[in-house]
Amino acid sequence: MSQITAKKAVILLSGGLDSATTLAIAQNEGFECHAMTFRYGQRHRVEIHSACRVATALRVKEHRIIDMDLASFGGSALTDAGLDVPKERPDLTDGIPITYVPARNTVFLSYALAWAEVLGAFDIFIGVNAMDYSGYPDCRPEYIEAFEKMANLATAAAVEGKGKYKIHTPIIRMTKAQIIQTGTRLGLDYSLTHSCYDPDPQGRACGRCDSCRLRLKGFAQAGLEDPVEYVK
Amino acid sequence: MSQITAKKAVILLSGGLDSATTLAIAQNEGFECHAMTFRYGQRHRVEIHSACRVATALRVKEHRIIDMDLASFGGSALTDAGLDVPKERPDLTDGIPITYVPARNTVFLSYALAWAEVLGAFDIFIGVNAMDYSGYPDCRPEYIEAFEKMANLATAAAVEGKGKYKIHTPIIRMTKAQIIQTGTRLGLDYSLTHSCYDPDPQGRACGRCDSCRLRLKGFAQAGLEDPVEYVK
Repeated sequence: MSQITAKKAVILLSGGLDSATTLAIAQNEGFECHAMTFRYGQRHRVEIHSACRVATALRVKEHRIIDMDLASFGGSALTDAGLDVPKERPDLTDGIPITYVPARNTVFLSYALAWAEVLGAFDIFIGVNAMDYSGYPDCRPEYIEAFEKMANLATAAAVEGKGKYKIHTPIIRMTKAQIIQTGTRLGLDYSLTHSCYDPDPQGRACGRCDSCRLRLKGFAQAGLEDPVEYVK
Repeated sequence: MSQITAKKAVILLSGGLDSATTLAIAQNEGFECHAMTFRYGQRHRVEIHSACRVATALRVKEHRIIDMDLASFGGSALTDAGLDVPKERPDLTDGIPITYVPARNTVFLSYALAWAEVLGAFDIFIGVNAMDYSGYPDCRPEYIEAFEKMANLATAAAVEGKGKYKIHTPIIRMTKAQIIQTGTRLGLDYSLTHSCYDPDPQGRACGRCDSCRLRLKGFAQAGLEDPVEYVK
């Protein structure tokens, strides 16, 4: 009996809805999934717990949690305790939000690239989405293309011709409703995921930050009920 | 009396000869220098001490030491205690050396980009050199150009038109002798720097690894004496 070896992939997994769906898609495409989660001074560790639950439920080959010190730079409401997470912003598409973390996806993808090179993997999955958030520059296709091009010049594995790196962004053009429908079809349990920027001490979602509002709107448009618990 | 504000720059500083010279060049060009050093599981902390001595001697505005976990990926003789640093390699330009650290410059430049964005800086200096080491893919001009292009798509500061990132590589086309002559002209004290991949317990350079041999050859060709201490 011959053994078919699955292609390895590195998956960036935050514990949110988008990256969990991205992982489900990568698994469904037959990749051997190596998940990578960053502890980067987020104010809410609930996100890390969600990532672990999702990684376990989806039976990844390996899950690494990497500590990094983006918080010491400041400049974002997601890492800087001195800045408040905005609530009830009138227009979700109005400019770059204060929850933007400087160069975050570039730092994350760089780590993913380093790990991929050591693993001998050439496929990296990231759950960026250019539809719902027009505000984050590092979620746009032109950014991802530029990163991919750079990666293929950066690494010994690519330069020696062992393979060509591909940054997979399977949900980049999906609406939140389409993402939720895709994950649901693949059997993903969204109660394991976490999206809120500002949960209460019990880990319940606030329902009012940008991320909660996009999530709730997505479930409503998909005609499904969000299984996570909200405050009130 | 009007005050002229210097332009800020982020300088990657390893404690080696190349990055110290790069910092001296940035200072000489009038930048307000913010130096960044990574503790990434190197086997020899002597490198970090050199970086601190150089940063102090050159009076940088700020020096940050960032801990990161590249060692946990393995795959390089510089971070993996299970691999030996090669000595007396017959041909220094023969392929990618085992001392290559996967995606290292990409990870370093990503952090520099994140810090630059928070500081409001658009200038990043890195002491890569494409002449002496043909082996490292992430020291080539085409790689640096690709990173710069990506950086200008990645960040809010660039996308909002506040500025354009420039990755400065002032020594990329210099020979080791030219680098040493340039630093000497700028008053840099090379006894503060450290190049050896495999120093003895007293921190003395081995004189035999690729890095020592390039350094010694550079000083010889520059007609200068290397002020660091070697074994024997």
